[in-house]
Amino acid sequence: MKKLMRVFISAVIGLAGFGCAAQNVQRYGMVLGLKEEKIPEYTKIHADVWPGVLKLIKDCNIRNYSIYLHRLDDGRHYLFAYFEYTGKDFKADMDKMAEDETMKKWWEICEPMQIPVKNRQEGEWWAEMKEVFHTN
Amino acid sequence: MKKLMRVFISAVIGLAGFGCAAQNVQRYGMVLGLKEEKIPEYTKIHADVWPGVLKLIKDCNIRNYSIYLHRLDDGRHYLFAYFEYTGKDFKADMDKMAEDETMKKWWEICEPMQIPVKNRQEGEWWAEMKEVFHTN
Repeated sequence: MKKLMRVFISAVIGLAGFGCAAQNVQRYGMVLGLKEEKIPEYTKIHADVWPGVLKLIKDCNIRNYSIYLHRLDDGRHYLFAYFEYTGKDFKADMDKMAEDETMKKWWEICEPMQIPVKNRQEGEWWAEMKEVFHTN
Repeated sequence: MKKLMRVFISAVIGLAGFGCAAQNVQRYGMVLGLKEEKIPEYTKIHADVWPGVLKLIKDCNIRNYSIYLHRLDDGRHYLFAYFEYTGKDFKADMDKMAEDETMKKWWEICEPMQIPVKNRQEGEWWAEMKEVFHTN
């Protein structure tokens, strides 16, 4: 009985650990311009994002998603996003996101406030940046 | 016995969960310029950061630290850092980092490659950005 209990507890610890640490994660860093006159509105709506948008982000295997804002030396304002992808097919999940009616409406509000950077790749709105360093 | 076992297992799950999720975390997003001609060298040394620097980062309660690079529309290159702080006194940990001999040597190599942004706060090298959105 004691041995069984030990085995069971080990399994529980193992599963709990797997859920938060051993999962396969791809990190993404993205950049996008933000119109100066839209900063108050953009900040306001992002402090209270629609529940349907937050649910979709989760359903599309994105977690730990943050967006930062800063004005750089050219006088322009930029948004920097960091998030972690835990799914198996990033493109398929992004397609799913793009087809969602709630997300389409959200993007219709956000996109006129934003200015994509010139050197983004074809098909990108947010430009994916190059990761040059990571430590856990 | 069964009841005791259930209590014990609940405690184990609780502790395991606490270790990875319930910890108090402060997120940071930082920005800094990088000289174009220094990109190859900066990228190279950051692909193989000194073990003493990595150990110090951990000892100073910083985890999940990533740096991204991108050229923006002004033709300049910028570094964007994201990390999580799990300690209780950020300033004290940053002071500890700044006093470390290995870190001083590392910064002596990195800083001549970098260009801090003009609107950084007093005492900053990397400028802290404003978080406008986060979801777990």
